[in-house]
Amino acid sequence: MSEIRQDAVSGHWVIVAPERARRPHAFANAAEKPRRAEPCPFCPGREFETPPEVMALRDSGRANEPGWRLRVVPNKFPALKRNPEQELAPESPWRREGVGAHEVVIEAAEHDLTWSEFPIPKLAELLGAIRSRMTALARDRGVESVFYFKNHGDAAGATLEHPHSQLLALPMVPALVAAELDGAHRYHANTDQCYFCELAGREGAGGVRLILDGGPVVALAPYAARAPFEVWLLPKRHQARLEAAGEVEMEALARVLRAVLRKLDRALGEPAFNLLLHEAPARSGALVYYHWHFELIPRLARLAGFEWGTNMFINPVAPEEAARRLRETSAD
Amino acid sequence: MSEIRQDAVSGHWVIVAPERARRPHAFANAAEKPRRAEPCPFCPGREFETPPEVMALRDSGRANEPGWRLRVVPNKFPALKRNPEQELAPESPWRREGVGAHEVVIEAAEHDLTWSEFPIPKLAELLGAIRSRMTALARDRGVESVFYFKNHGDAAGATLEHPHSQLLALPMVPALVAAELDGAHRYHANTDQCYFCELAGREGAGGVRLILDGGPVVALAPYAARAPFEVWLLPKRHQARLEAAGEVEMEALARVLRAVLRKLDRALGEPAFNLLLHEAPARSGALVYYHWHFELIPRLARLAGFEWGTNMFINPVAPEEAARRLRETSAD
Repeated sequence: MSEIRQDAVSGHWVIVAPERARRPHAFANAAEKPRRAEPCPFCPGREFETPPEVMALRDSGRANEPGWRLRVVPNKFPALKRNPEQELAPESPWRREGVGAHEVVIEAAEHDLTWSEFPIPKLAELLGAIRSRMTALARDRGVESVFYFKNHGDAAGATLEHPHSQLLALPMVPALVAAELDGAHRYHANTDQCYFCELAGREGAGGVRLILDGGPVVALAPYAARAPFEVWLLPKRHQARLEAAGEVEMEALARVLRAVLRKLDRALGEPAFNLLLHEAPARSGALVYYHWHFELIPRLARLAGFEWGTNMFINPVAPEEAARRLRETSAD
Repeated sequence: MSEIRQDAVSGHWVIVAPERARRPHAFANAAEKPRRAEPCPFCPGREFETPPEVMALRDSGRANEPGWRLRVVPNKFPALKRNPEQELAPESPWRREGVGAHEVVIEAAEHDLTWSEFPIPKLAELLGAIRSRMTALARDRGVESVFYFKNHGDAAGATLEHPHSQLLALPMVPALVAAELDGAHRYHANTDQCYFCELAGREGAGGVRLILDGGPVVALAPYAARAPFEVWLLPKRHQARLEAAGEVEMEALARVLRAVLRKLDRALGEPAFNLLLHEAPARSGALVYYHWHFELIPRLARLAGFEWGTNMFINPVAPEEAARRLRETSAD
């Protein structure tokens, strides 16, 4: 017997249908790697293959030379660009210039290192770099929101193997983000509570959907999980944007994130995943009703016509069952 | 230089970024077949592998025996079921029972036949059967909307090769459908026009996004296409639901759909695709502001974190360019 759940904030619906897990090939997408580009344009010594870096963490060397631990570069094939040379005449009210930014975070010099294998301080440093770029891009003229995401593995849409993630600075607030902001605002108006603060407190205190209580940061299975083994990570303290997170949160986030990834690797065989950062929009200031969080979505099944056309999801694994299995799986 | 477009009705944003098409492996997903189940549970002689049929078109034989040209059966692994045996106590206001229906249309007896190869009368008969099931399911107690979709090919989420599609009868109106209805309602309130009537008239009359003018039915590239070579098919006459379509529309739809699929096969190498039917909800009656249409989305690239988190899309092929290429491609 399936049940239907709605996310209290974003409003999306999910059909939790455990019988669907009995289908042959229900989970077909785990663990494929993207094809290997030879030579890898993100490896040390190939810095000339990317546009010049906008940020780097280095042990040695000069800009755009080897010696770095982390680089942030503009995407060579950008969806959006800063400072367009050409003005477009609008064809209709439904058109805007493609102004913004599209950056790539090259997360490590090591080609084969995955986040599950990152030392905690290295992962915390990476999260700090993401915070720093989010903050800088949000200040750009015309930017309304900045979206950070990581595609890991072929099934998650990664086209290169070298550990990397992306930032898009957008001249609008995307529809799903706007819907979540509206829902969170409504929740706060009704209850005088931040939904996410309440969630971290309620689910964090030994709830059935708790995966890991990491002190300042908690990992849980969301009530209306869109995908099997979806995980949310959020701080217990109220912080609207990642910019507000201190070192205590960044270190805890690194610990909890690595533990969750190791649990997923062990439980599901190193699945492909998308990791998304949600935070309050660039111009909104320190909202009392919104709270940054990461959403981690293992990509075990392909999105098909139903999901594409409705933004509804069929999830064959109940979040309570996913949380129980992840709690019981070692992170060592 | 990219540009950003918004769909006037659904409100989704698209980044049209032709430079992204220059990426290595930009279109990696074409033409993979789903793995073959042996023996195929949808082939004639294996009728016992599915639940008993709710509809069939037959040349001979009795129910659930060979001799059929088309069968509709309940999904063996249903996301939703009719007549639940068990009542669920709601855990929260965000929960509903999984009541509804999930049916599979087995579209042909021939295991390897694709829609591009269907004779026109067979495709028209299939579309008539879909119309008939949409109509019947919309009358079920508790059903608020019915969603028809076809996943063709591995990259589009198909798990079986035998030609088939699916119907989901839902106890709510999904968020994206509700947003589209709101947008269409707003458009009608502002202009006293059905957006889709106007679209078929404006774009159908030799516009830059016209793909094929098929008399009563037109095929065009939508202005804010979410994916390369996305195609919409819609009737010129105002019809809120497929139920209202007459034989003249069904025959024209079959002709236009097959021609478009053959053009896509030739232009893109038999791509995987999702086909979605949008129509007014089950209980809404004959709305003046909404208009049934099919959306055909070739699945040439994987959906990644950005699309997942924002419902925004990066489309490396401008719809005007896609329409031009499809107009110039033969459908023979």
